[in-house]
Amino acid sequence: MKILSGFPKNDGYRMPGEFENHIGCFMIWPERRDSWQYGGIAAQNAFAKVAAAIAKSEKVTMLVSHSQYDNARRLLPENIRVVEMSTDDAWARDVAPTFVVNDNGNIRGIDWGFNAWGGLIDGLYFPWDKDNKVARKVCDLLDKDVYNARNFIMEGGAIHSDGEGTIMVTEACLLSKGRNPQLSKTEIEENLKLYLGADKVIWLKNGIYNDETNEHIDNICAFTSPANVVLAWTDDENDPQYAFSKSCYDILSNSTDAKNRHITIHKIPQPSPIYMTDEECNGLDYFDDEPTRSNNYRLAGSYVNFYISNGAVIMPGFNDKNDIIAKNILQNLFPTREVIQIYARDILIGGGNIHCITQQYPSGIKNI
Amino acid sequence: MKILSGFPKNDGYRMPGEFENHIGCFMIWPERRDSWQYGGIAAQNAFAKVAAAIAKSEKVTMLVSHSQYDNARRLLPENIRVVEMSTDDAWARDVAPTFVVNDNGNIRGIDWGFNAWGGLIDGLYFPWDKDNKVARKVCDLLDKDVYNARNFIMEGGAIHSDGEGTIMVTEACLLSKGRNPQLSKTEIEENLKLYLGADKVIWLKNGIYNDETNEHIDNICAFTSPANVVLAWTDDENDPQYAFSKSCYDILSNSTDAKNRHITIHKIPQPSPIYMTDEECNGLDYFDDEPTRSNNYRLAGSYVNFYISNGAVIMPGFNDKNDIIAKNILQNLFPTREVIQIYARDILIGGGNIHCITQQYPSGIKNI
Repeated sequence: MKILSGFPKNDGYRMPGEFENHIGCFMIWPERRDSWQYGGIAAQNAFAKVAAAIAKSEKVTMLVSHSQYDNARRLLPENIRVVEMSTDDAWARDVAPTFVVNDNGNIRGIDWGFNAWGGLIDGLYFPWDKDNKVARKVCDLLDKDVYNARNFIMEGGAIHSDGEGTIMVTEACLLSKGRNPQLSKTEIEENLKLYLGADKVIWLKNGIYNDETNEHIDNICAFTSPANVVLAWTDDENDPQYAFSKSCYDILSNSTDAKNRHITIHKIPQPSPIYMTDEECNGLDYFDDEPTRSNNYRLAGSYVNFYISNGAVIMPGFNDKNDIIAKNILQNLFPTREVIQIYARDILIGGGNIHCITQQYPSGIKNI
Repeated sequence: MKILSGFPKNDGYRMPGEFENHIGCFMIWPERRDSWQYGGIAAQNAFAKVAAAIAKSEKVTMLVSHSQYDNARRLLPENIRVVEMSTDDAWARDVAPTFVVNDNGNIRGIDWGFNAWGGLIDGLYFPWDKDNKVARKVCDLLDKDVYNARNFIMEGGAIHSDGEGTIMVTEACLLSKGRNPQLSKTEIEENLKLYLGADKVIWLKNGIYNDETNEHIDNICAFTSPANVVLAWTDDENDPQYAFSKSCYDILSNSTDAKNRHITIHKIPQPSPIYMTDEECNGLDYFDDEPTRSNNYRLAGSYVNFYISNGAVIMPGFNDKNDIIAKNILQNLFPTREVIQIYARDILIGGGNIHCITQQYPSGIKNI
C-alpha cells in the first residue's frame, strides 16, 4: 500500500455512484454499550440481516473487534467474511475509506480525517483514534493505495456522488464548527472536487431534524441514478422537518448537475416521528457520566438511508404505515433490483441507519 | 468460510512441501515484552528484514496488533500488507493455519488446537486464547474453508512435509505430556496422515538441545526436496546436541519415505553454542513474577530454521564462523533460489527463528 499525497482528480480518479458495480461492501460489527442497548444483541441481529441481504449479490466483509469475533461469526452466514479490526463504534460509511476509481478499473481509497462528527466541539464520543485508522487499514487489507486526506475532516455519509461529476452535501454538516472551521465554503468545495474527481457541488442547507451527525446528506437525499434523487419529505408543516425538506426541494429544483441536467426529485415520505423509549434508554451505558439517550429523544429516522448493492436496495423499515409506500417508491426507481426492507429501529437507536453502516467497494465497472 | 469437520485426506487434500509454489506468506509482528528485549525494537527490525526478503518473490501479510499498526507500517516496506490481528506472541508458523491443497488448486486451512507448546504442563505462556484463534481468522481473511482440528494440539513447526506423502516429526515434541497425552503414538500418527494427506510419518527422537517447543522438527531437520533433508549437526561429542543429531542421522539413514525412496542426509553444522547475555536479560519483562530468560541460558540456535520462498531461501546467521559454510550448503541444495542470510540473534532470543515466524500460503501449483 502506497500512501499518496495529491488529489485523485489530478490522477484521473472519480468517486462512482453507489449504483455502479461493486466488488463488495464493508461493515463494522456493533458492540459499543453506550450506543447499542442491552449489549447490542438486537443491533447485531439487525446488522446481520443487512449483511446477509447485501451478501446475496456482493461480498460482505464484517470488521469486528477481537473480543466479538466468535460472536459475529456465530450470528453471520458463512458467506460473509469476518475480519478483525479495532474501531470505536460501528459506522463503516464514515470511517471506512471512500473509494475512487479511474477509467482503467484501478481503485484507490481516501483516508479522510475522522473526529467523531465534530471533535471536541460537538463530537459524539472521545477518543476516536481507532476509527480514524480504519480507512488506512482497510486499504492495507485490500492492498490498495490510499490518499492521505487526514487533515480534511470528512465522512462518507456527508457526501453523495452521481458518478458523473456531481457531489451533494449539506451546509449544516460541512460548515459545522467541529470539522474544518479554518476552511471557507469555497475551499471545502474545492477539496471535494479534487478528492472526489467532481466538477460541481450541490449544497443543500439541512438534513434530517435532530440528526446528530450535523445532518448528513445520506439521511435526507440520495442519487438513485444521475439526475434523479429521492428526498425525505413530510407534508406536516408543524414538523421541523418540513422546513428542512422544503428548502432542499427548492434548492434542488433550481439546480443543475455537473452535466447541466435538471434534477428530478422523487419525494419519499418520512416515517412518523420516532422516539426513544424508557426501556431502550435503560439498556444503554452512560458515556462520561451522562446518559447517551433520554426518554422521548427524537431519532433521525428516514427511508433515504438505504444501501444500493449490486442486486438489491436494502432499506430500513420502522413498522410504520409509510414503510410500504416508501418501499414502492424505491422499487419503481430501481426496477432491476430487489428492494429488501429490514426492520431497522435497532440500528436507528445507535444514531444512523443502513447506509451509515455500510461502505461499498466499487469495481470500477460503471454498469452492473 | 465454512468450518469443516472430517479430514483433508479423505477430501483429496495434502500438505505441500514448502519448496512448492506459494501465493504468499503470513508473519506476526513481535511486541511481547517478556519475549523480545527492550520493547522488541531489535526483533521488529529483524522481522522487517525477513519480511522484505520474502516479499521479493511472494506477497507478505504481516499480522499486527492495533497498538503496533502504525509502528509496523513505519518499519515495513510498502509492498508488505499489514493487517490487524490480536495474538499472544509472534509465531506464525505455530498459530497460523497449516494449508492443504488438492489437485485442482483448491486451498483449505487446518485450525489445530494451540496451547503455547504444552498448556498447563509445560506451556510457555498463559493465556494463549488469542493465538488459538489466529488460524481460523486467517482462513476467514482469505475466505478459505477451514478444518476444525482444535481438539488435536499441534503446531506448524512440529511437522515437515515432503509434499509427496511423507511427514517428519520428533517424538520429544509430539509425545510430550502437554499436548495430546490421551492419544497413543499410533493415534497421533493416524491423525497426521488424515489431516496432512500423508501415508508415512518418520519419527525422529529429538530436536535441538534446550529448544523450549519440546524440540520442534523445524529447528533440526527439513526437507529441501523430496528424499533430501538437511540435518543440524555437530561433531562435538561433548555437546548434548551430538547425541540428538546422531540419533536423527541413524533413524533417517534407515528410513525410506512414502514413496520407498532412501533419504539423502545433508549435514549442516551448528553455530557455536549461543547464550543469553546479562544485558539482553535485563531488557525483558518478567512473566508471572519470573524472569523469562537468565544470563547464560543456552538458546536453541540452528541454521535449519530457514524459510523457502518462491525465489529465495531466507536463513539465519549468527555472526558465527559456520555462517558461510551453512549458507553454501543451502545454496548448493537450492540452486534456483537466492540464499539470503539475515542476522537472527534478535529473533532467536524470543525462542525460535526464521521458519518459526513465517507460514507459507501455498498456491496449489506444485512447481515454481
